[in-house]
Amino acid sequence: MPREILLNAFDMNCVGHIQQGLWTHPRDQATRYLDLAYWTELAKTLEDGLFDGLFLADVIGVYDIFGGNADAALRGAVQVPVNDPMLLIPAMAAATTHLGFGVTANLLYEAPYLFARRMSTLDHLTRGRVGWNIVTGYLDSAARAAGFSAQPAHDDRYDLADEYMSLVYQLWEQSWDDDAVRADRQTGVYADPAKVRAVHHHGKQYRVDAIHLSEPSPQRTPVLYQAGSSPRGRRFAASHAECVFLNGQGVAGVKAIIDDIRALASAAGRAPADIKAFLGVTVVTGATEAEARDKFDDYRQYVSSEAALVHAAASLGVDLARFDIDEPVDTSASQAITSNAEAIARSQGPQWTRRKLLEQMVLGSRQPPLVGSAGQVAEALIAWTEDAGVDGFNLSRTVAPECFADFARLVVPELQSRGAFKTTHRPGSLRRKLFGQDRLPASHPAKALPLTP
Amino acid sequence: MPREILLNAFDMNCVGHIQQGLWTHPRDQATRYLDLAYWTELAKTLEDGLFDGLFLADVIGVYDIFGGNADAALRGAVQVPVNDPMLLIPAMAAATTHLGFGVTANLLYEAPYLFARRMSTLDHLTRGRVGWNIVTGYLDSAARAAGFSAQPAHDDRYDLADEYMSLVYQLWEQSWDDDAVRADRQTGVYADPAKVRAVHHHGKQYRVDAIHLSEPSPQRTPVLYQAGSSPRGRRFAASHAECVFLNGQGVAGVKAIIDDIRALASAAGRAPADIKAFLGVTVVTGATEAEARDKFDDYRQYVSSEAALVHAAASLGVDLARFDIDEPVDTSASQAITSNAEAIARSQGPQWTRRKLLEQMVLGSRQPPLVGSAGQVAEALIAWTEDAGVDGFNLSRTVAPECFADFARLVVPELQSRGAFKTTHRPGSLRRKLFGQDRLPASHPAKALPLTP
Repeated sequence: MPREILLNAFDMNCVGHIQQGLWTHPRDQATRYLDLAYWTELAKTLEDGLFDGLFLADVIGVYDIFGGNADAALRGAVQVPVNDPMLLIPAMAAATTHLGFGVTANLLYEAPYLFARRMSTLDHLTRGRVGWNIVTGYLDSAARAAGFSAQPAHDDRYDLADEYMSLVYQLWEQSWDDDAVRADRQTGVYADPAKVRAVHHHGKQYRVDAIHLSEPSPQRTPVLYQAGSSPRGRRFAASHAECVFLNGQGVAGVKAIIDDIRALASAAGRAPADIKAFLGVTVVTGATEAEARDKFDDYRQYVSSEAALVHAAASLGVDLARFDIDEPVDTSASQAITSNAEAIARSQGPQWTRRKLLEQMVLGSRQPPLVGSAGQVAEALIAWTEDAGVDGFNLSRTVAPECFADFARLVVPELQSRGAFKTTHRPGSLRRKLFGQDRLPASHPAKALPLTP
Repeated sequence: MPREILLNAFDMNCVGHIQQGLWTHPRDQATRYLDLAYWTELAKTLEDGLFDGLFLADVIGVYDIFGGNADAALRGAVQVPVNDPMLLIPAMAAATTHLGFGVTANLLYEAPYLFARRMSTLDHLTRGRVGWNIVTGYLDSAARAAGFSAQPAHDDRYDLADEYMSLVYQLWEQSWDDDAVRADRQTGVYADPAKVRAVHHHGKQYRVDAIHLSEPSPQRTPVLYQAGSSPRGRRFAASHAECVFLNGQGVAGVKAIIDDIRALASAAGRAPADIKAFLGVTVVTGATEAEARDKFDDYRQYVSSEAALVHAAASLGVDLARFDIDEPVDTSASQAITSNAEAIARSQGPQWTRRKLLEQMVLGSRQPPLVGSAGQVAEALIAWTEDAGVDGFNLSRTVAPECFADFARLVVPELQSRGAFKTTHRPGSLRRKLFGQDRLPASHPAKALPLTP
């Protein structure tokens, strides 16, 4: 019996997300990203299609490695302009009941006290349907925007992140007791001050002496997502993450990372099942394989090679504009600015070229698409769960929103008929849907902190 | 012919806002503040009632002067717990077409680069219906939450605020030309990089080298609100504000402040009419005076004296818990932590007591209520506009939301019949509704900054 597959739509509050250039397809609606109705319609489509969640990426800064400036990124709308993702969620939450919302926020740039309140507010307003993708990187352009000359070194960022997490955990988990709020009109007592306490955090990077401003929300700590696959990133994920995101580097590679994170989590006293692994996938499907291939051929006409190279250059840390199409790309200059940049560069082999890269980026991204009939796609996804220990998928957009509607209409029934997908939404918070309870388990480090005095 | 009166509802993402204790009234719904439907219903009530906007207060920190701790504030829900106000706006915007949204944000605690993006995102999602109440103060407890030992001195805060404004103006006004976005599917060009430029701000407090991440929004800079009435606060308002908030200290006092701010604005090259003055008012009304008085007598039974003193103690900077009911309050210990604390303390006279203060806070706040028939209220409001140069009102909540519905149902028709209120919403952005154009006028200092290179 296959496990039940979890499913997120993966999107971003911008025009071009992963598959570069597809916003120019006549049916693509990503240029409506400034319109609230676009997002509330999308949320309803996803909820009706039994998606578990909508996951919103974000990036602070621009992709300015290619050509040494942001010109090509601006031309091709490669994740720029990009608006705040968090502000989409309240409107989508008002339009839905079950859909979860994962949101990316970079803790380097968010003051922890106000950030903690923002997440608590979202958790209240969504009735416990919010998750946070913890990001600590990764662009120098973001660091310059925030007033640093460059971003902190990779491992230092994770040390800072550990302190940040300890602080926000205290605010979310310890400042208010579950029964602090009485809301008693007769006695006029809203909260019992004996059950509310200040957090006193005097760390290396942060100092806070204050109560949390929000009363306890359904989940308290939002569901925690993390995407680091570097050794330090895996340790961070093993400590903190409830859901980890991975990108496909073959079944063996993905399985190795998942197994490693679960082993590290076990060593830290957590249950391996307390961590769900989501694989990023791109799907082009149809009722038949022929229909899927036709759609794929249609889509790929709209790919932008330049935009794809802009994104790849930023990920690889190499200015691909400096190389001729068949010139071997010198990776020795690569800066490992993504947590998996080294692995990516390795996967290209020692003698790779722009041409080879472009041939690989067949749909405008380094993520190869799964193209096939709904049944073939369903089989492939189930195989990932069986062979690599994947729990679910982050479905990136191609031509939006039809790619999500296609998946719901075509692939979901195939998964259901194989016993690999729910037939209705489960009730309750996002964490309850994923893990059976609203709050973090006792084995999570947020629960093991010394009690706020 | 009276001028057309502008009208905001004044509220906060919390249980107790200005009139302390009224959340215990059986019909009050403020304890629903965690429920998105409460806010979308309120927004529709306000839009249908021809309110121009909903103004959301905020405070970072707790009122811990009274008794030396936050216990009484927590008991009485005196602006604590308090959730993020900005996150209410997208859901309310999706439920309405015309209503404006003013939101309070304290620039001391919001990193300017991400804050600028948040406001641009809101301006896009609301189609230009957003305003920002610029706050720089005022609680030591907020400073401690953010990692400072105490907040910066009053005038230093305004110097920092001037630099902050200069930076966000550059991001909002200068980074993207109006015609930078082409969104051309044929050529694959989303934005013209020649029309997008980085802001280079190397100031005393902030350093940013980056393009703004958001494309130009309908208003670019949100409508700017400010509430300072200290001499330094007035200078700040005269430079930056388009709408100023005042609280009633008698007609002559209010008129003097408005005249002073307009004179300062004129001296700075701005048109006096480019600044609208809003007076905070509390209204209890009915079809007849008797009905209004009955309602007032009903409401006042639910006032919390303790909660009112908590709020007053924070405003006055005096621990009122240390004084017996008839003991003269020693104001020499008062810290002027609100911009108008000195004026407030002066207005109490040299020999005031808790008893006198409580008698004055008849509805749980130092803001005296206007109680009368709808016609009487309308006359009183029109008199304020004629005698003090007030342009509009911030209507604070008593028993919510019925206080707003009452005003719309009863007072608005009385104002309309006197030619002092619109009969339908005007089209366009919030700034267009208020000032006839979407963007800041050329005389505003945001337009006079040296051009970003």
